[in-house]
Amino acid sequence: MNRQELKHVLGRVARAFPRARRWPLSTWGLTRDETGELKRGGVALGELLERYRSPLYVVDQARLDGNAARFLATPLGCARGAEPYYSYKTNPVPRVLQRLHQQGVGAEVASPYELWLALELGVPPAAIVFDAPAKTPDAVALAIDRGIGLINLNGRPEIALVAELARARHKRPRVGLRVVVPGGRAGQFGERIETGAALEAFREAQARPELDVVGLHSHVNGEIASTAALEALVNPMLTFTEQLRRELGLELEVLDFGGNLACPTVSRLPERARRLAVTFGREPDPRPPESVLSIEDYLAQLIGQVERHASAHGVARPRIFLEPGRAMTGDTMMLLTRVLSVRGRDEAGATWAILDAGINVAEPVPHEYHHLLAVAPRSAETQRYRLTGPSCTMGDLLYPAWELPELAAGDALAIMDTGAYFVPLSTCFSFARPAIVSVHDGQVEELRRAETFEDLVARDGVRDVRRPRPLGVPAGSRADLRH
Amino acid sequence: MNRQELKHVLGRVARAFPRARRWPLSTWGLTRDETGELKRGGVALGELLERYRSPLYVVDQARLDGNAARFLATPLGCARGAEPYYSYKTNPVPRVLQRLHQQGVGAEVASPYELWLALELGVPPAAIVFDAPAKTPDAVALAIDRGIGLINLNGRPEIALVAELARARHKRPRVGLRVVVPGGRAGQFGERIETGAALEAFREAQARPELDVVGLHSHVNGEIASTAALEALVNPMLTFTEQLRRELGLELEVLDFGGNLACPTVSRLPERARRLAVTFGREPDPRPPESVLSIEDYLAQLIGQVERHASAHGVARPRIFLEPGRAMTGDTMMLLTRVLSVRGRDEAGATWAILDAGINVAEPVPHEYHHLLAVAPRSAETQRYRLTGPSCTMGDLLYPAWELPELAAGDALAIMDTGAYFVPLSTCFSFARPAIVSVHDGQVEELRRAETFEDLVARDGVRDVRRPRPLGVPAGSRADLRH
Repeated sequence: MNRQELKHVLGRVARAFPRARRWPLSTWGLTRDETGELKRGGVALGELLERYRSPLYVVDQARLDGNAARFLATPLGCARGAEPYYSYKTNPVPRVLQRLHQQGVGAEVASPYELWLALELGVPPAAIVFDAPAKTPDAVALAIDRGIGLINLNGRPEIALVAELARARHKRPRVGLRVVVPGGRAGQFGERIETGAALEAFREAQARPELDVVGLHSHVNGEIASTAALEALVNPMLTFTEQLRRELGLELEVLDFGGNLACPTVSRLPERARRLAVTFGREPDPRPPESVLSIEDYLAQLIGQVERHASAHGVARPRIFLEPGRAMTGDTMMLLTRVLSVRGRDEAGATWAILDAGINVAEPVPHEYHHLLAVAPRSAETQRYRLTGPSCTMGDLLYPAWELPELAAGDALAIMDTGAYFVPLSTCFSFARPAIVSVHDGQVEELRRAETFEDLVARDGVRDVRRPRPLGVPAGSRADLRH
Repeated sequence: MNRQELKHVLGRVARAFPRARRWPLSTWGLTRDETGELKRGGVALGELLERYRSPLYVVDQARLDGNAARFLATPLGCARGAEPYYSYKTNPVPRVLQRLHQQGVGAEVASPYELWLALELGVPPAAIVFDAPAKTPDAVALAIDRGIGLINLNGRPEIALVAELARARHKRPRVGLRVVVPGGRAGQFGERIETGAALEAFREAQARPELDVVGLHSHVNGEIASTAALEALVNPMLTFTEQLRRELGLELEVLDFGGNLACPTVSRLPERARRLAVTFGREPDPRPPESVLSIEDYLAQLIGQVERHASAHGVARPRIFLEPGRAMTGDTMMLLTRVLSVRGRDEAGATWAILDAGINVAEPVPHEYHHLLAVAPRSAETQRYRLTGPSCTMGDLLYPAWELPELAAGDALAIMDTGAYFVPLSTCFSFARPAIVSVHDGQVEELRRAETFEDLVARDGVRDVRRPRPLGVPAGSRADLRH
């Protein structure tokens, strides 16, 4: 058996595994009308593309409102709920942010721009949490002047910075300190509990009369998809609050458990899955959504544990801050795209299709599971496609292996769960960025207009670009270009 | 020996290998003034940052002009030179593109936006080559109407598309066909020579009277850094021209050898180098620039071979098109950045420093070698740093291990060779995008102004953002946010 034959046999074996189980359309708030065309929020997706052009990001407003309400609910048996502050960096679309704020969600900002944006959007300063690995003096000064709810210091280097700016302004900002729980990766973030550095940082902050030390803040590494992952964060944080009380007499008002709750229908693709898809055409298996900790179970476990801990130690129940990102918006947006061109089958039996959306607007797709659906399938039978974006690089391979009904140029596809890290990681690589619309009850609203070619050169000495100085040569052969 | 001790010993061994050899500053057109501060184009880099704020992209105009002149030169012993068409997608900054065009370089465009931009910039249509894996009818119609120099069809699906649009407009566009040389990866590009598909595509195109079939086009996979890599492209292309002449009587006017010539001071970091840097703090070894095929040797070998082949077969010497990207501009730009914050040493003995430039403006740095220099070193001694960007994610790790003089907040660093795929792959992830200036003979010119916060929301229903509808609640506790 030669190499080619071996690959062929291995490919058949790899693809013989059970195909990825398809979840019901209701998983994504989708329906199909009598012609088989997909609808969301009562709007036919094909019509949306006709009206707003392709590609197009589409926000499901009911899903957005629903996720906000779920995060704001008080679990059964708990005294109060948590206080969610949406992680702006995850999907900083002003109209999406405003909608969340109108539901009662606060803002978690991680840069001077995001702080500015939250204030511009009219978010009450008390409903803003300011995180960032290295805060600039200007941004800290603004945060102090406006009296934002909580400034989470990333560690000891920030204590003096914030204290001195506060003293100069005769203010006493509310601060928390970011810590790393035992066994956690620190990277550029926080002070370690296990080395004693976290305790020392609290001692140092407490000694600065300009600082109102109210909070303890931590994130896990990676994502929280299970009870065990949540416990690995909550247990050591609660234990550390006892140490703070015992050794520093510090009773914290706020416990900020950060973000990282998983989006149930999105999961990181293991490197092996990607290789199997590229080499053998095997469609990746998604993680079953029901195996992922839901917003409700996450809140019930987390709040319940904090409340039991407080009552066991006879202390006031702290406020619980959360900074959800992908769990809040990941499944509230999708990306519609059209097939530009279909190429014949390659030697591996896959048909190549080139879409008008690629890594420029769907950066996470090559390394995360994002379900893909035909908007108006031509048939019930499927075949195996390799789907690339429109840019002139082999790296623009979105789906190395995906079963779809037969495709032709112009057909529309829906890439699901694009509400986390698609818009902020989008680029202008060869193409302008798409519009964003929302759908709700059969209504469509434009949240962000599509970028124009003129927008792409608006910062470039416009006079030169729009009225080009003639190069002094008539159109002609290349040699004419030289001066 | 426990795990921690083992890691410590292995780390010492890994770092004991010879340190990356430091090339002379002239490699990058840099000098240091009497105080030790870096200058480029006669301009002190610290002053540049003062004036234009950090981070900042800086174009070296002399280097840009020089690279253009090198690509336009006729090698000794050759009858004529090649015709370079700059790959717009690599660094689509209008003023950079205009400068190249003024030197006599044409435009290689790979999307409707890039085609529009070249025409807006006043590039004569004959000096434009249009590539793209899937061209839209609108863009093809524009290309035909304006009579651009060469439309490279990506394969059979595009033949009918272009022919039909040409017939409707009574024009006869000049087209080439993209092929894949034997053994090459095709991906979404081209037709294979070895399967006969490329020949069939030429036959089909030649049968369409609406098409003026003038060109043969191919790219290699990966980069061309050696004589052998270039031969692997040129030999099979020349052999295929004989087949086209023999079987179709087709004498091609243009051979388009695409791009992919390496930038000598940039190289892809092997996964192993990245792991050694992350785990053991070993600074990656760069590829020696002198081992990389120079522009001059590339041209001499390529043009010489084509001319010898033509003369041996008694045919006219074809025009030679090139589509350089990184070899033209990779080393013509750098990125200046400042240290925002320095954190104490971690357990592995590395000091963490957080910069104001991260993967948002330096996407290639984690996986490519880009030299890094202190603009005004505080000492001759160095220590080991881990350098991250400013965004709130552990993934923003630019340099896991790099020896630098002692750093303090405010210090400036220069990331070298950012003229390929930095600007087009930049994002608005938590931060606005920087300005671009050029330096030349002590003069500074702003090519692109920095993005403002207002720019970032300019497409978002501005009235709502700039004059926020009050949420109807006074600033106060989070509960006030609920309506």
